[in-house]
Amino acid sequence: MFPAVTRAFLLSSMTPVCRSGVTVRRYCMKNPTKLRVSEAFLDAQVGEKVRIQGWVRSFRPQKQNLFLHVNDGSSLKSLQVIAPAAMNDPLLGFGCAVEVRGILKKSPHSKQPVELEAEQIWVIGECNPVDFPFKIKERHSLEYIRQFLHLRCRTNAFSSLLRIRSEATAAVHSYFKNNGFLLVHTPTITSNDCEGAGELFQVEPPGTTFANEGSFFSVPVYLTVSGQLHLEVMSGAFPRVYTFGPTFRAENSQSRRHLAEFFMVEAEISFTESIEDLTKVITYTEAIDILKRSSETFTFPTDAAAVDLLVPGVGELSGGSLREERLDLLRSRLGECGLEDTYSWYLDLRRFGSVPHGGFGLGFERYLQCILGVDNIKDVIPFPRFSHSCLL
Amino acid sequence: MFPAVTRAFLLSSMTPVCRSGVTVRRYCMKNPTKLRVSEAFLDAQVGEKVRIQGWVRSFRPQKQNLFLHVNDGSSLKSLQVIAPAAMNDPLLGFGCAVEVRGILKKSPHSKQPVELEAEQIWVIGECNPVDFPFKIKERHSLEYIRQFLHLRCRTNAFSSLLRIRSEATAAVHSYFKNNGFLLVHTPTITSNDCEGAGELFQVEPPGTTFANEGSFFSVPVYLTVSGQLHLEVMSGAFPRVYTFGPTFRAENSQSRRHLAEFFMVEAEISFTESIEDLTKVITYTEAIDILKRSSETFTFPTDAAAVDLLVPGVGELSGGSLREERLDLLRSRLGECGLEDTYSWYLDLRRFGSVPHGGFGLGFERYLQCILGVDNIKDVIPFPRFSHSCLL
Repeated sequence: MFPAVTRAFLLSSMTPVCRSGVTVRRYCMKNPTKLRVSEAFLDAQVGEKVRIQGWVRSFRPQKQNLFLHVNDGSSLKSLQVIAPAAMNDPLLGFGCAVEVRGILKKSPHSKQPVELEAEQIWVIGECNPVDFPFKIKERHSLEYIRQFLHLRCRTNAFSSLLRIRSEATAAVHSYFKNNGFLLVHTPTITSNDCEGAGELFQVEPPGTTFANEGSFFSVPVYLTVSGQLHLEVMSGAFPRVYTFGPTFRAENSQSRRHLAEFFMVEAEISFTESIEDLTKVITYTEAIDILKRSSETFTFPTDAAAVDLLVPGVGELSGGSLREERLDLLRSRLGECGLEDTYSWYLDLRRFGSVPHGGFGLGFERYLQCILGVDNIKDVIPFPRFSHSCLL
Repeated sequence: MFPAVTRAFLLSSMTPVCRSGVTVRRYCMKNPTKLRVSEAFLDAQVGEKVRIQGWVRSFRPQKQNLFLHVNDGSSLKSLQVIAPAAMNDPLLGFGCAVEVRGILKKSPHSKQPVELEAEQIWVIGECNPVDFPFKIKERHSLEYIRQFLHLRCRTNAFSSLLRIRSEATAAVHSYFKNNGFLLVHTPTITSNDCEGAGELFQVEPPGTTFANEGSFFSVPVYLTVSGQLHLEVMSGAFPRVYTFGPTFRAENSQSRRHLAEFFMVEAEISFTESIEDLTKVITYTEAIDILKRSSETFTFPTDAAAVDLLVPGVGELSGGSLREERLDLLRSRLGECGLEDTYSWYLDLRRFGSVPHGGFGLGFERYLQCILGVDNIKDVIPFPRFSHSCLL
């Protein structure tokens, strides 16, 4: 959208402009060793001259010295920078981007292992404290910072959530890879009306009349509500497959539990022998036993091939089932709905080398809410989309 | 969509039904050790009784013995199974799903390290060779198998592509993780009209009149054409971020180079010092030198802050640039387009603690085409979506 600057422009804008002999406004590109804050904490460079780049998270000018905390997103902890009071400058303050060069020293304080004695501080990008919505030393609520989707990654709370989300994503992939699952990129756009009517988003180029026959794809198409059917396709050649990507529901809810776009982990296992292949939590029989021992009265089927995991405060976290295998039964149900032609490909899966299979889905945001105790689902996804809200 | 079967039903359908005393039609759930084909090739279980589950990829009944190749998707290579001719059964054949139990032996043939001497073969799911679109011993073209999106994962060519795609995805994540990048799930639905007019898909619940004011989100929303702007948001708190997910273009093309839904790897680096931070291929200056030495005459700018990587036969594989940093220039350009209010959040990124940053995008399917020499982009994605085609 925005054209790239030519390099010549950038270089000139990066030429150092000295102010008060110490603080320099623009960017510079020389040595010494560039360290990330998390690397500085490793101690290995103590006694050496290094440079650190990041954003000022706290700023305390005192008589003799300036104290800054610089954070670069590599850890929750910021690096303490100490500079002579003479290095102060009106541009230096909470929220601005800086490069600091100096000597990394063991800290005399128990609060941090190392600190940086600044020899030079360069303000790369200033930050007007009056206009900037986050204020130094104020503890803003999640509700408040949620109003500033484009800036909230600069808060401790939300940058921590982003780091955890990134790590949790890697852990999901690593779990499935180590357990012999093939990752399949199931499609976002689908012609399947997967769960039958309702809560679907339809997709077309703008200006298209959404008649029954869509125009771009020649058929009406929707945003996926589940990758299950596409994983079932893959279950005809691979015993373990999974997908992990965005999923959509046009649910008219602004509750703290619902998003119109959320991430789902879904897995499908072929040659399943029972629902216990899908879950190691408790068996259905064990669950029934627990209910029977309870003082409440419950009704339940004597046996089932489906399982849902409901979590207090979060709702349905996960659901799984064995899939219907019987071709005749599927064909007659699809026939009743007038869908036999549309889903002939699904019947083919049962017709050619079919195997018993089952799978489950896990709502990734709800999972993050569970492990982190985050109350509102909008705080565990970078850019929440929900009824009447699609910012950025 | 399809309700789960009750377990009672499934169990009854899994009760073994003996036929001709040897081949059994339905599924069974006892020992011995279940091995994947790739594990069988590791040799560790030679001499032991094991069971293998998979699909029959070749079937040769001879006078004394039956020879089968069983594949379970864990490797390109299938496991050779040898059974007495008496175990033959009309249900056993190319494409059917089987469980085989027997003794794993060192193979006398150099073609394979091990083979399985069958004691029992259970046909789990039959496959009518007349109706099944893939035929034994025939080498089907990619064009032919592409017609059967729901079955093509059962071919050697496409199952190999799926395994490579899964491994390549893991490699992408692993590269970025090892290089200090944070994974950010940039949104699929966005209110940004990111590249200005054209080739966008719009999103609404069905039956909505697509007026200028969308209804579900209160504003018109689109499928993302790039995560760049959202990564730029994150560049205000993290020095290295990336995203890897579906991206969309409503391009009216059925060419072998274009998809309406494709995967893109995008990265954004803060505190960039030059375009060389983004690419290690060749510097702009080196590229100019090569052009100057050529016998052709070229015109080019003397310097640039953008780079594109074009690959013969594939097209643009990757493009990157340094982003415009100058607030005044951005504001006046946005003002000219009447977009200053809409993109005030983007201006905020330059207003508060801005740093020079740049990034690139890489088309994942085109990358797979390059490394694999696959001619048609539709053959490197599980479920291709393009103009007038959205199957499944």
